[in-house]
Amino acid sequence: MFENKERTSIEELGEFGLIDHLAEHAPTGNANTIIGIGDDAAVLKYGDRCVLVSTDMLVEQVHFDLMYTPLKHLGYKAIVSNLSDVYAMNGTPHHVTVSVALSSKFTLEAVEEIYAGIYAACREYSVELIGGDTTSSLKGLMISVTAVGTAKEEEIVRRSGAKEGDLLCVSGDLGGAYMGLQLLEREKRVYLDHPDMQPDLEKHDYIVSRQLRPEARKDVIELLKEKEIIPTSMIDISDGLSSEIMHLSKHSGVAFAVHEDKLPIDQGTYNVAVEFGIDPATAALNGGEDYELLFTLDQKHYDKIKGSMDITVIGYARALEMKNQLITKQKNIHDLVAQGWKSV
Amino acid sequence: MFENKERTSIEELGEFGLIDHLAEHAPTGNANTIIGIGDDAAVLKYGDRCVLVSTDMLVEQVHFDLMYTPLKHLGYKAIVSNLSDVYAMNGTPHHVTVSVALSSKFTLEAVEEIYAGIYAACREYSVELIGGDTTSSLKGLMISVTAVGTAKEEEIVRRSGAKEGDLLCVSGDLGGAYMGLQLLEREKRVYLDHPDMQPDLEKHDYIVSRQLRPEARKDVIELLKEKEIIPTSMIDISDGLSSEIMHLSKHSGVAFAVHEDKLPIDQGTYNVAVEFGIDPATAALNGGEDYELLFTLDQKHYDKIKGSMDITVIGYARALEMKNQLITKQKNIHDLVAQGWKSV
Repeated sequence: MFENKERTSIEELGEFGLIDHLAEHAPTGNANTIIGIGDDAAVLKYGDRCVLVSTDMLVEQVHFDLMYTPLKHLGYKAIVSNLSDVYAMNGTPHHVTVSVALSSKFTLEAVEEIYAGIYAACREYSVELIGGDTTSSLKGLMISVTAVGTAKEEEIVRRSGAKEGDLLCVSGDLGGAYMGLQLLEREKRVYLDHPDMQPDLEKHDYIVSRQLRPEARKDVIELLKEKEIIPTSMIDISDGLSSEIMHLSKHSGVAFAVHEDKLPIDQGTYNVAVEFGIDPATAALNGGEDYELLFTLDQKHYDKIKGSMDITVIGYARALEMKNQLITKQKNIHDLVAQGWKSV
Repeated sequence: MFENKERTSIEELGEFGLIDHLAEHAPTGNANTIIGIGDDAAVLKYGDRCVLVSTDMLVEQVHFDLMYTPLKHLGYKAIVSNLSDVYAMNGTPHHVTVSVALSSKFTLEAVEEIYAGIYAACREYSVELIGGDTTSSLKGLMISVTAVGTAKEEEIVRRSGAKEGDLLCVSGDLGGAYMGLQLLEREKRVYLDHPDMQPDLEKHDYIVSRQLRPEARKDVIELLKEKEIIPTSMIDISDGLSSEIMHLSKHSGVAFAVHEDKLPIDQGTYNVAVEFGIDPATAALNGGEDYELLFTLDQKHYDKIKGSMDITVIGYARALEMKNQLITKQKNIHDLVAQGWKSV
C-alpha cells in the first residue's frame, strides 16, 4: 500500500551527506538548545547546567562481527564509544540508556554477557544505566546507546573553535584498532578454512584489545582540567584521524598541517602494519575506532603538555587557503582527504 | 570463537522478566539519579532542574508492518510514543535523538518520508531533533528514539504514589488503536489474496488513525496543571489498560477496582469490535498503543475533573489484599490479569 515513486539510493549521498541532507529540513529554534545536530554531542541548557546528549547505533555485520567479538566486549564498547563523544565536548557523562534488539538465536546467557560488558563500562566510567528497551529483531543484534552528561557552559569544547597558530594534538596512539581488526579478519578466514586451527592472538594482545575493548579518554579530559587547559576545539577519533581533521577544519574555518613523523604509532601496531604490507602512517591516518581525542590548543599551553607521555603535538592550524596537508618524513607534501591523503 | 554453553530462551522470561532480571545486576548509586530503571522515564537531577530521559526501539515486522504503515506516520509515531513517556511523568519533553537503521531496499525518498513524520511530530509538540545516527541494517528498518525533557522535582509523578481511596482516571478513549490494527491486518489479508481489490478504510478513519498516527496527551498534562492537580501516580497506556493498572498496583502497593461500564470506548471502536466478534471491553482492557494517560487522583480533586469530556473516572484504589478486579456490567467480579481478566 505504501509506494515510493522516486528512487535515489542512499549510497549516492554517503552517511555524512545523508545526515546533512536530513538536518537541512529539521525544525529548530528551541530556546534551550545550545548545540543541535553536527557536533560529537548535543548541548542543552536546562536551568543552570548544560546537558550533553550523544547517541549511536551498532548493527551486527555492519559494525561488528560476532565470529570474533565476545558479547561482553561488545557491550563494553557500545558504552565507551558513546561516552567518548561526551568527553570530546569536555563534558562528564553520568547516565546511559541502552536498547537491544536481538533475534531468537540469542539466549538469555548471551544477553547477560552483553549486559555484563555494559555494566563493567558503567562501573569503570562511573555512569549509570537508567533505561532502555529489549526487543526482538528479525535478524541479528542491534544495540542503540544514548549517553547523557553535564558540563559548565564555559568549559564546553566544540569542533569549531580552532584558530590559526593553534597546536593540533592527539591523545594515545593511532591505528591500533584498525590493525587489530585486520588481524581478527585474517584469523577468521583461517578459522573458516581450517576449523581445527586455533588462532594465536596472544602476542598481539594490545592491538586486539584496541579493537575489541577500547577505552574512552576520561583521563585525558581530567589531565587537561588539572593543567587548566581548555582546548579550542575537540573531536574523538571514531572514523579515522584524517576524517576527524577534516571535521575540525570545516567547522573551525582553518586548515591543518600534519607531520607524518609526529604520528604516535605503537610498536606492535607498526609491526603488524608492515607484516600486512600496510604503511603504518596510513593505518594511523585512516584507521577508525581508536577513540582517542583530537584537539587544538593555544600555543601558550605548550609547556604544560610537552612532557606528557599521552599527548602528542602532530601539527598546527593555519589559514584555510593553505589546505589540510600531510608533510611526510621525506618532506613531501600531500593533501589530506577523508580517507588518508592524495599526492599533489 | 564465541561460544555459549548454557541456553535459556528469552521467551521463558518474557519482556518484563528480562528487564527485571537484567536490572538486578545494574550498578547504581549515582548521586544525581532520582529515578533509574522502572518508570516511564528516568529522572536525573542536574543542577536546579530535573531531566527526564525515555528511550524506545521500533523494529520492522515486530512493532510495525510497512504493508499498511506509511513511513511518515511511522516517523511520527516513533516520536509520539517516546514523548508520551515524558508526559506520563508530568514532565515536558524538549529534545529527541533518533537513530535509524535500514537495509538497502530503502531509498533516499523513503528516509525523507520517515523524517518528514519525525519533523511533523517535533513541530506539533515543540521538541527539537538534536542528534542521531543513520546506518545500514542487514534486514528491514529499525528506529530508536530517545526523548529528553524537564520537570520541577515537586511536580514529577511516578508509578508509585497511588493511595487507598484515590480515583483511577483515564484520558480519551480506549481500544481504538487495537481495533484499528485488527482492521488493517484484515485488509492486508484481503489485499494479499485479491491484489486488485482496494481497501475501503475511509469510514474507519478514527480507529485507523488511532493505530497509525497516535497523539501524546500533552493537552491532558496542561489541563491538569491548569486545574492545579498533581496526580498521585501516572503511566501511559502503551501495552494495554490491564497491564498498566497492574504496574500502578505493583509500584504503589494498592489494588484497583475497575468498573466495566465506565470504560471509555468510542462508538466506532465499539462497532468494529462487535463486527470482529470481540467484546469491546476486552479491546479496551487489552488493546495497546492508545497512548492515553492512566493516573490516580486524590478524591478532593473530583469536582475539578467531573465535567471534563476527556478524563473518565474508571475505578478507585483500595487495599492490596482486595486484588485488582473488574466489576462487569452484570455486577460480576473478575480478577484482572495482564491480558484482560480471568473469572473468579
